[in-house]
Amino acid sequence: MADTLELLAQKLRDFAAARDWEQFHSPKNLASALIVEAGELLEHFQWATEEESRTISTAKREEVAEEMADVLLYLVQLASALNVDLGEAALKKIKKNAERYPEHLARGTSRKHDEL
Amino acid sequence: MADTLELLAQKLRDFAAARDWEQFHSPKNLASALIVEAGELLEHFQWATEEESRTISTAKREEVAEEMADVLLYLVQLASALNVDLGEAALKKIKKNAERYPEHLARGTSRKHDEL
Amino acid sequence: MADTLELLAQKLRDFAAARDWEQFHSPKNLASALIVEAGELLEHFQWATEEESRTISTAKREEVAEEMADVLLYLVQLASALNVDLGEAALKKIKKNAERYPEHLARGTSRKHDEL
Amino acid sequence: MADTLELLAQKLRDFAAARDWEQFHSPKNLASALIVEAGELLEHFQWATEEESRTISTAKREEVAEEMADVLLYLVQLASALNVDLGEAALKKIKKNAERYPEHLARGTSRKHDEL
Repeated sequence: MADTLELLAQKLRDFAAARDWEQFHSPKNLASALIVEAGELLEHFQWATEEESRTISTAKREEVAEEMADVLLYLVQLASALNVDLGEAALKKIKKNAERYPEHLARGTSRKHDEL
Repeated sequence: MADTLELLAQKLRDFAAARDWEQFHSPKNLASALIVEAGELLEHFQWATEEESRTISTAKREEVAEEMADVLLYLVQLASALNVDLGEAALKKIKKNAERYPEHLARGTSRKHDEL
Repeated sequence: MADTLELLAQKLRDFAAARDWEQFHSPKNLASALIVEAGELLEHFQWATEEESRTISTAKREEVAEEMADVLLYLVQLASALNVDLGEAALKKIKKNAERYPEHLARGTSRKHDEL
Repeated sequence: MADTLELLAQKLRDFAAARDWEQFHSPKNLASALIVEAGELLEHFQWATEEESRTISTAKREEVAEEMADVLLYLVQLASALNVDLGEAALKKIKKNAERYPEHLARGTSRKHDEL
């Protein structure tokens, strides 16, 4: 079974190539498109309380999932464009965060690592 | 071999649980954190030409990869919080986009689907 | 006394001209820079509860005010670049919102106008 | 003649009060709404070249002006909620930028102040 991120990357490369869209897919543009989708995602929660955001309806969840997909699709395309291994970068960042946020210092606080 | 997205989800659940951070990780907050990271990602390209964004240095690419990782990590955590299957949502969206953007209409244009 | 928005616009045009920065200040780039600053603004509140965000310290308020200034400065520059009258556009939008959100329908609800 | 920013602030306070919307207008929520609008603004330029963004049609400019208005309206409301003097903060930031970016060092470069 192919890894999901790799499968998405391949499908998106084919998709863009079939439409001659690589010309639009500069990293600058992809990073812009990504944050635009991140805004559409946040829009669903902007007036909700945190509690309401934890208990959204099934219909709302479908809409939110589609915005999340849009973010992921641009992220995967940006990774392709820059030749970044997204999974590796993510695992590396988790390790870095583990060092920055030791459990005994970070427990129960939302302070940034440089304020712990 | 575990799928990367599933592996990340598991690691991030453990990470948050060990620090008692679930209290901060409402979907509303995660969607906010995600767009903040998307902004840090875009910052790298805001004054660059598209061409410059295609040809960044290795050092810059490392920095960009870390911001991309941050976006992915929040996206994966949001998916966990909302019980969304991110890979499935992404594949579903690619299918929808294929219907919205038929090759013969979408080739070489950046117009939105409702303007094709 | 000059209107603040006009005063800012003039100062920012002089500022950019003195540094030969007009070349970087395409509307595309200014809109990117604006959202990057909007992200830095939101970062101050991303883990805060709504209540905490209403009662920030004086020191935090200074930091937040600086991010708000950054957003405004890019907005004013974008208005200059596109020859948009920002004050007029804002007053026009308030009128439109008044039509979209009649008091008797909109009172006490955060629903969008098309769901009222 | 009232200063535009002050006029907008007053109108928006009345608008929200008449609809009992202060309950939704925590700084956290207003900062979220602001970046969502900043995303809608950027969407107009995400696939455009810089040159195209400098030469948009009158119709497009109207749409863009409305998104810019939305950003300003939330910014003004956030300033009210936090008791920030937006004009003063903006003038202060211009002074700070003048110190950070001396003309002889900053001319013709888009580097950040800490890289000049």
